[in-house]
Amino acid sequence: MGLAASLPQPDRTENQGAIRDGEAAETGIESGEDALRSLSALLDRDMQACNRAIVARMDSPVPLIPQLAAHLVAAGGKRLRPLLTLASAHLCGYPDRPDAAADRHVGLAACVEFIHTATLLHDDVVDESQLRRGMASANAVFGNKASVLVGDFLFARAFQLMTDDGSLKVMAILSNASATIAEGEVLQMATQNDLSTSIERYLEVIHGKTAALFAAACRVGAVVADRPEAEEAALDSYGTNLGMAFQLVDDALDYAADQALLGKTVGDDFREGKITLPVLAAYEAGSEEDRQFWRRVIEQSEQAPEDLDRALALIASTDAIGTTLRRAREYAERAREALSVFPDSRMRRLLGEVAIYTVHRPR
Amino acid sequence: MGLAASLPQPDRTENQGAIRDGEAAETGIESGEDALRSLSALLDRDMQACNRAIVARMDSPVPLIPQLAAHLVAAGGKRLRPLLTLASAHLCGYPDRPDAAADRHVGLAACVEFIHTATLLHDDVVDESQLRRGMASANAVFGNKASVLVGDFLFARAFQLMTDDGSLKVMAILSNASATIAEGEVLQMATQNDLSTSIERYLEVIHGKTAALFAAACRVGAVVADRPEAEEAALDSYGTNLGMAFQLVDDALDYAADQALLGKTVGDDFREGKITLPVLAAYEAGSEEDRQFWRRVIEQSEQAPEDLDRALALIASTDAIGTTLRRAREYAERAREALSVFPDSRMRRLLGEVAIYTVHRPR
Repeated sequence: MGLAASLPQPDRTENQGAIRDGEAAETGIESGEDALRSLSALLDRDMQACNRAIVARMDSPVPLIPQLAAHLVAAGGKRLRPLLTLASAHLCGYPDRPDAAADRHVGLAACVEFIHTATLLHDDVVDESQLRRGMASANAVFGNKASVLVGDFLFARAFQLMTDDGSLKVMAILSNASATIAEGEVLQMATQNDLSTSIERYLEVIHGKTAALFAAACRVGAVVADRPEAEEAALDSYGTNLGMAFQLVDDALDYAADQALLGKTVGDDFREGKITLPVLAAYEAGSEEDRQFWRRVIEQSEQAPEDLDRALALIASTDAIGTTLRRAREYAERAREALSVFPDSRMRRLLGEVAIYTVHRPR
Repeated sequence: MGLAASLPQPDRTENQGAIRDGEAAETGIESGEDALRSLSALLDRDMQACNRAIVARMDSPVPLIPQLAAHLVAAGGKRLRPLLTLASAHLCGYPDRPDAAADRHVGLAACVEFIHTATLLHDDVVDESQLRRGMASANAVFGNKASVLVGDFLFARAFQLMTDDGSLKVMAILSNASATIAEGEVLQMATQNDLSTSIERYLEVIHGKTAALFAAACRVGAVVADRPEAEEAALDSYGTNLGMAFQLVDDALDYAADQALLGKTVGDDFREGKITLPVLAAYEAGSEEDRQFWRRVIEQSEQAPEDLDRALALIASTDAIGTTLRRAREYAERAREALSVFPDSRMRRLLGEVAIYTVHRPR
């Protein structure tokens, strides 16, 4: 299913023309996907330094920790959040200022990735009731243990990295974000299987579980550059809106991704009874018979093998993916607009295009 | 089984005579148990302020968080760690110094308790223990996932409290302790079911999982009072040794406690195949037949209902509890000795006696 094709294309009112990686041209606008690649290429040295910091600080005399850490590092991921910290710092002129230490943004980017990885590990923890349903229980219990403890270790490491950095302001931003993430995750758990969840409540959940860390990752870029509050707030807004767009697309992909192509399993959220906008929109727009179906599969968790196909059909017939992606697109536009307080620069344009890219991305 | 009765009594080489709660007399020495009660009474105002801070900062707009938190608060516990922070601060003359804010020790005591509670919540997930202080553990009532997420919330809150306090030194102490705790827990997981674990390795585990936070709780007391490094180090040593003694006794109680009296299930560690000193000592001192038994029940986790009784009998016949408690007593003595850098005071004597009390305590 081609997500990109179903979306309105990004505005191309500015100069047309793609910039290839490494080109210094300041004219033209990248396509969203090229923008993310260009941004990564532009920040390649910093990202490599950040990856080295991640590997170095994942080390521990307890062998299981670097073992598991190596597995996580190997699993990779786009490292989008640390990239945002690095890009935000550069957007604010860091580390080009002569009075600043040269690599604070690198350590803090690693710190942001540690917080993200810790929450991912803890998100993977499942309840024993779920364990009994089919998973190899000894393995799963070992997984729970390792996930919780290594997650705690990474979280503690993140705060050690912040301590090394020495900024109480950064500490406040990232500890506040950490608390908000946990609140978002708990709220998500509380809304699970509950179709009476309002869209506002759902947006609160994704703000907590995703957007808060995006916002913090960007804001600390302005802090290390010692920029005024208006620029901090602008980057916070950019990160928040980008994170909202990112999570909305993620939730859409759970009902729309081409599994073979994108390496994401369709229906994970469905099976868990997770309340996301595709489900809320389909439920809202459904007939009474459709609603009875949703209540059975989501609220009573009574799911037969063919129910996912019916859910996908209902989501398609109600344009629930379209509803979700239009909302994502609004956030992405707001993210780009938030950057308008900064003077025009290649970095600003790239970040703006990255926001647009989030609503096009294959995962 | 009376643990206290099986132990050598504390030295009474100093002045004899018990001080009752509230008495101001500076002569005489409390019995261990009276010492903890006297310490709590002496610090009652601070402890009440700390409890208020705990309740206030456990609040969240996400209802499940204060609900679960209330469950934890109701479960109570002695709040030994925050008590240590408060007592250490007072031992160092805080908050009597006119140039210091009056309540930093209270906020940091709450912070220490948050870190402790977070690790307890995560430990319950890991160990699948059904009883925590005689009540159903939080994960049994709310589920693994809720325990993990609320633990994360409390951990984040702890770092918010540190940020409010504003001391990078405190931040370093408590983030280092947090990383060490996680390492200790992972190391414990790695030694589980492994009878070839050395006593040194076991001591590393309990240093990480318990003593590190005791040490940090005490050290921050010296930091808020702005005392020289020697006093910080002395309180760190006091906390470390106290924590080691505390955990050794805890591990002894798992094979010796009167469940109805103490609210602790005998045999939890046994059933989990946890490697603790009572098991290591009994294994070390056992016959080849005994060792085969231990390998079956601990290494292969093959346990029949009558095996706990046999384990208890072997532990009794090898004096493994005695071995464990003698080691605990050594640490307790070292804890008391560490305080010798401080001038004699009622607080110093009470803390010294509390160390002795740890090896007598019913839980």
